[in-house]
Amino acid sequence: MAGGESTCPSAAVNTHPATQITDPAAHVQALGRAARAASTELAAAETSLRNAALLQAAEIIDASEEKILAANARDMASARERALAPALLDRLELTEARVASMSGGLREIAAQPDPVGSLSAAEQRPSGLQIARMRVPIGVIGVIYESRPNVTADAAGICLKSGNAVILRGGSEAACSNQVIHECIVAGVVGVGLPASCVQRVNTTDRAAVGALLAMDDHVDVVIPRGGKGLVARIASDAKVPVIKHLDGICHVYVDNSADVERAVAVAVDAKTYRYGICGSMETLLVHASIAAEFLPRVGEVLQTKGVELRVCTRAVEVFMQAGIACLPAVDEDWDTEYLGPILAVRVVDSLDQAISHIATHGSGHTDAIVTDHIGRAREFTRRVDSSSVMVNAATCFADGAEYGLGAEIGISTDRLHVRGPVGVLGLTTEKYVVTGDYTTRGG
Amino acid sequence: MAGGESTCPSAAVNTHPATQITDPAAHVQALGRAARAASTELAAAETSLRNAALLQAAEIIDASEEKILAANARDMASARERALAPALLDRLELTEARVASMSGGLREIAAQPDPVGSLSAAEQRPSGLQIARMRVPIGVIGVIYESRPNVTADAAGICLKSGNAVILRGGSEAACSNQVIHECIVAGVVGVGLPASCVQRVNTTDRAAVGALLAMDDHVDVVIPRGGKGLVARIASDAKVPVIKHLDGICHVYVDNSADVERAVAVAVDAKTYRYGICGSMETLLVHASIAAEFLPRVGEVLQTKGVELRVCTRAVEVFMQAGIACLPAVDEDWDTEYLGPILAVRVVDSLDQAISHIATHGSGHTDAIVTDHIGRAREFTRRVDSSSVMVNAATCFADGAEYGLGAEIGISTDRLHVRGPVGVLGLTTEKYVVTGDYTTRGG
Repeated sequence: MAGGESTCPSAAVNTHPATQITDPAAHVQALGRAARAASTELAAAETSLRNAALLQAAEIIDASEEKILAANARDMASARERALAPALLDRLELTEARVASMSGGLREIAAQPDPVGSLSAAEQRPSGLQIARMRVPIGVIGVIYESRPNVTADAAGICLKSGNAVILRGGSEAACSNQVIHECIVAGVVGVGLPASCVQRVNTTDRAAVGALLAMDDHVDVVIPRGGKGLVARIASDAKVPVIKHLDGICHVYVDNSADVERAVAVAVDAKTYRYGICGSMETLLVHASIAAEFLPRVGEVLQTKGVELRVCTRAVEVFMQAGIACLPAVDEDWDTEYLGPILAVRVVDSLDQAISHIATHGSGHTDAIVTDHIGRAREFTRRVDSSSVMVNAATCFADGAEYGLGAEIGISTDRLHVRGPVGVLGLTTEKYVVTGDYTTRGG
Repeated sequence: MAGGESTCPSAAVNTHPATQITDPAAHVQALGRAARAASTELAAAETSLRNAALLQAAEIIDASEEKILAANARDMASARERALAPALLDRLELTEARVASMSGGLREIAAQPDPVGSLSAAEQRPSGLQIARMRVPIGVIGVIYESRPNVTADAAGICLKSGNAVILRGGSEAACSNQVIHECIVAGVVGVGLPASCVQRVNTTDRAAVGALLAMDDHVDVVIPRGGKGLVARIASDAKVPVIKHLDGICHVYVDNSADVERAVAVAVDAKTYRYGICGSMETLLVHASIAAEFLPRVGEVLQTKGVELRVCTRAVEVFMQAGIACLPAVDEDWDTEYLGPILAVRVVDSLDQAISHIATHGSGHTDAIVTDHIGRAREFTRRVDSSSVMVNAATCFADGAEYGLGAEIGISTDRLHVRGPVGVLGLTTEKYVVTGDYTTRGG
């Protein structure tokens, strides 16, 4: 995969003179310097200007639908030639609806409130100083992603909104699509008078370019990888710059013996089956022993009709067998697996303590829920479970930015520093102190 | 400096059986595992318990004053034998007053409000879910510092308060002092029933131990280096774990032509001379051209009587010469130097724009101030200057946690992510989402 440009080859022949990139590190350095310069202008730009750029980019994407779909068709053709997996083809493919949802996404981002420049309440100190904090952009953000071309628009949109310059590095299989989408966004940015280098794209598939991006701590403030676990882990391990990342989503639902059985079944089924492929999907169901005989057959029956395979602990095997529900005995690694599919691990536990300790040992710190009518146990669960989202009587599949009211999201952070959980516009900002006095001196 | 233990050699002979550490990496790994386990208990501990540990540690430090001073005398003796620099000896030395200020510091930390467990206002979403955020400890914090033994108490105190387990790694020259202070704190922690491994100390001066600490991303959530620029830069470059760091403090005061001259002189003098050695001390004074002839002679006169050496731009040379004030012509590197001493760079600028651009080019993003009576220029300066603290009509030397009302501080962050500016108890916490429903499902 090393070498070569991500400039769409056919497009290059037809419309763009190919720019041969011989030194990927130098290319990325140049992007970095330009991004840093642009970030200063962008940070000082008024809300209305950044929103206008988003709206103009949305218009241009709509107007370029045909061109985008044609570029995508070229990507799809070469992907099919290379016999890429059907799941990848699905992520790569753009349709009229998907193009409309890109431009719609940009309009939604434009309509969101702008956190940049807002000042916290000021505290008056004994010195006479007033101490407040102002929300400001982080600066320059690198986004590294895989085959979905719509990430080009989403990531650019959320970075523009939050006043950050962005350097995009998409998957090589989407090069034609990404190039055209990127051109649309740059046209919107330039159209309102902002520098083109607010939104830049790494123009080579050479892996050395990623290495250079991850090492460029003078020009890149944070890198956000979006994609499979392999990509994210590799980037986190290689990066010299800070990374905001999402690793596993091994989410648990613990059904306490105080739970309303009927309603708990609905929550557990929803947590598993709302969508199998999302990171907030439940992977392990923990059930209190004293409710297991009543709860498990009922949840098992529904899950069975939905085609979910059950991999269960010894005690649960007995219950399911008696109820005539098919299941497999769980092996150790089932407790540590993110299935992202119609498979569920089930374990009977003796207490809330055991549930919490199972989650601490096997969870990934993403999203975990308790289902209970007991206020004290809910309190203890939310206090002691150390995950980016802790839920009470709600399905784990709710873990996303839109449901939390964050608007557009660029991912879900399972890190502990800076931002945890869904990362929206706010997560891409930071604060600075604004200290105001009246010619105040400290004396001495 | 490689090899050897930081267990105080004489103390070891007299009272502690020396534990020979043959594998520093394994030693640090063991500290890490123990810290992770302790952090779970500590995070769940009530405020009152953590405060009781702090108060008990303070008592024990007071009661151990003699023992601490004796240990420190041993450190001082070997430091003198090795002919260490006077500044280092001063930082190393403990006195009765300094011991009292350690215990007093712990009591102050105990008296501060506890952010851990606090819940933000909950937002009600259309789904029926209530979305709130709970403040929680980061987890395990590594603190790497140099010769000041009081950092042992300060860092342990602020970490305990914020519910974090801490691994301390102090300078080898303070080994005897650090050992005794650490024992006092552990006695306080254990005295209230918390695990001893809430506060641990790396018990070897082998550099490999630092390497292991910086690489241990499964057991250490963040490392905070405290010390000279060399130490901090080395740690930032070597660390695989996140680092909260403070690099340069090249702070500017820009005196606008709208400023009240008399009062602006007071602010500039205070910013430089309040204490030369603190990171918030002004290093460069920028003065608007149209006020330079009036302002510079007056500020120069005061600074001259205080023994501050002036290194000034060509235009300022003229003004100072005419006023009979001694100065040297500045060379390029003066604009990029943190003197931390009685030296000041002075430059005349033509506009607010030029001042902001000078700060962007030469500043370190620490603390920068404008002195002005013009509200629009104050607004522009605070918006456009990208530093952790931006001040209006206040001396830059105010940049510290106590002055900002943060209570105890473990340092000042010049990073952009997670925490910027003074880092207090709050900066050592993070948030998790707490999502509450009524058996709420997403449907599908």
